[in-house]
Amino acid sequence: MSIEQIYVIAEYADIFQIGARNMQNFMLLKELGRIKKPVMLKRGISATLEELLLSAEYILSQGNDEVMLCERGIRTFENYTRNTLDLSSVPSLKELSHLPIIVDPSHSTGRWRLVGPMAKSAIVAGADGILIEVHPNPKVSLSDGAQALRLKNFSKLMMELNAVAHAVDREINLTGNVD
Amino acid sequence: MSIEQIYVIAEYADIFQIGARNMQNFMLLKELGRIKKPVMLKRGISATLEELLLSAEYILSQGNDEVMLCERGIRTFENYTRNTLDLSSVPSLKELSHLPIIVDPSHSTGRWRLVGPMAKSAIVAGADGILIEVHPNPKVSLSDGAQALRLKNFSKLMMELNAVAHAVDREINLTGNVD
Amino acid sequence: MSIEQIYVIAEYADIFQIGARNMQNFMLLKELGRIKKPVMLKRGISATLEELLLSAEYILSQGNDEVMLCERGIRTFENYTRNTLDLSSVPSLKELSHLPIIVDPSHSTGRWRLVGPMAKSAIVAGADGILIEVHPNPKVSLSDGAQALRLKNFSKLMMELNAVAHAVDREINLTGNVD
Amino acid sequence: MSIEQIYVIAEYADIFQIGARNMQNFMLLKELGRIKKPVMLKRGISATLEELLLSAEYILSQGNDEVMLCERGIRTFENYTRNTLDLSSVPSLKELSHLPIIVDPSHSTGRWRLVGPMAKSAIVAGADGILIEVHPNPKVSLSDGAQALRLKNFSKLMMELNAVAHAVDREINLTGNVD
Repeated sequence: MSIEQIYVIAEYADIFQIGARNMQNFMLLKELGRIKKPVMLKRGISATLEELLLSAEYILSQGNDEVMLCERGIRTFENYTRNTLDLSSVPSLKELSHLPIIVDPSHSTGRWRLVGPMAKSAIVAGADGILIEVHPNPKVSLSDGAQALRLKNFSKLMMELNAVAHAVDREINLTGNVD
Repeated sequence: MSIEQIYVIAEYADIFQIGARNMQNFMLLKELGRIKKPVMLKRGISATLEELLLSAEYILSQGNDEVMLCERGIRTFENYTRNTLDLSSVPSLKELSHLPIIVDPSHSTGRWRLVGPMAKSAIVAGADGILIEVHPNPKVSLSDGAQALRLKNFSKLMMELNAVAHAVDREINLTGNVD
Repeated sequence: MSIEQIYVIAEYADIFQIGARNMQNFMLLKELGRIKKPVMLKRGISATLEELLLSAEYILSQGNDEVMLCERGIRTFENYTRNTLDLSSVPSLKELSHLPIIVDPSHSTGRWRLVGPMAKSAIVAGADGILIEVHPNPKVSLSDGAQALRLKNFSKLMMELNAVAHAVDREINLTGNVD
Repeated sequence: MSIEQIYVIAEYADIFQIGARNMQNFMLLKELGRIKKPVMLKRGISATLEELLLSAEYILSQGNDEVMLCERGIRTFENYTRNTLDLSSVPSLKELSHLPIIVDPSHSTGRWRLVGPMAKSAIVAGADGILIEVHPNPKVSLSDGAQALRLKNFSKLMMELNAVAHAVDREINLTGNVD
């Protein structure tokens, strides 16, 4: 992503998602700090929690305080999964920061069968939001089909997430998500 | 642990716990395959899921089919936590094997504040059991005090685990665990 | 670095050095492919050799064929050194690509005492160039002082590098480097 | 390896090689400390330099001071090579310890074409010895064929190693190695 694109995107998008590869693109982060749009900052695949928080500071320091952190897996030696979802980062980041934390079980695992269990775990671990890839027909998806949920499985998962959230005294806002 | 110790231990212990450093001590594993005691095999800190399963085969192939796998964190670059709890290993191992899976949130995180959230996440991810370090007074613990729960926090956690388990249609057997 | 800065820099600099954090800043790479200046592309701290080569393609595909690759260490669990210099990447990249390879023993090790041995090893492993940090007084260096060589040690190292290069039938051009 | 095997092996072998998987088999190490035979201790694939040195202490503390350390590669995300040869461990260990250091370019790279460059680099980095796999016909080798040198290539490499060693004022004892 280039810095010039920010202003065009800002006209149409509700939230900026900064991908793992751009987590340390500091000039981009500073520019995002000067706009008034929420930014979801994804953790780099080999970024420590400290580095993630320091990157968030580039945005916050310019006056934009609507920053969300996103755990989306780190690169390890294990390759059954695409990356290793570091779920203990959620309560760890809660100790270190006030920023909301989103978990992405789709990109981290790279396997749709693991998305449900990891989404539920994320809620219970304290995540403030979950990013799930859904596709009406994953087999024809142009990218990331292997990790996308079908609509039916997504609806089922949302019901399960709701039950799990209740068990930890939390509420999931289903508005507009499932029909 | 040495192979000769197995028979002494077998007289007193109910379960053999094979630590991460011994996961590929193949002669030890084979000998454990010849006894009739349950074995909990901990994942090596840099072992892939495939290697963990292959190690289990050393025990199983000798006739002992009471093997449990234990996820206890892997070594990564992140060092806020002691190791990185790879929770997606739980549903992954469920796809690959019929063996029960135990999760150890204490050794993996190394921080008692993270034990609760990770224990709950493990249940929801499908773990068949959890290994939690508890100490009446962690400050005077001879080892691993930083990751030990006080009795009061442990009792509280067990109640929370119960609620979470119910939400995913599971049951926790509290007998003998909490008073 | 932002894309707009390229044209200002191009007026003054002889070579573009793209740091590890920008190795997958694809829009920047494409723009660098449209200028006529050599580019040294540093390997990301968690980039595979394949990803490094694919990043180089972004530059090459736009018509700029003056690309050098730079091994500067990868992030691993070892932290005696700042990063782990993956020296086998040099002959590996030579198998996979025709591009010249530079080794940076300063950033990878983060310790000036290791710079000499690793610089010599790099030459012998087949590196086409070495990037060494030198400072007249490392103690007052504003950054990276711990890995900088003093001028005297640098001069001594150049002589040693020359001897090592001869042993593998190579020649070091000392012009302008040492006085 | 089991502890009982030590005394049988001691009758026939000149040196004990403790493989990476046994680097933290502490009872084995202690027993090796009680015999009078040199021990080459290989670094575990995810062992830090500190852990390697602490393991060596188990042998040394029992009275056997003939311990050699062996760098044989660590497990990282890179998988073009079998493991990542951490060559900066050689001068690092030289800073921390007086023990001789052997480098294994065969197991670490897993590719015979990389063995020569890495063997030469190891000499220049300060290694006290090199462990090279050689096979008269690697294609029919029962294990590790992909990393084995043919006799002809090994002879050629020894000559090259000699030249490189001279360049750093060292001498290779070729007795009995090449004919």
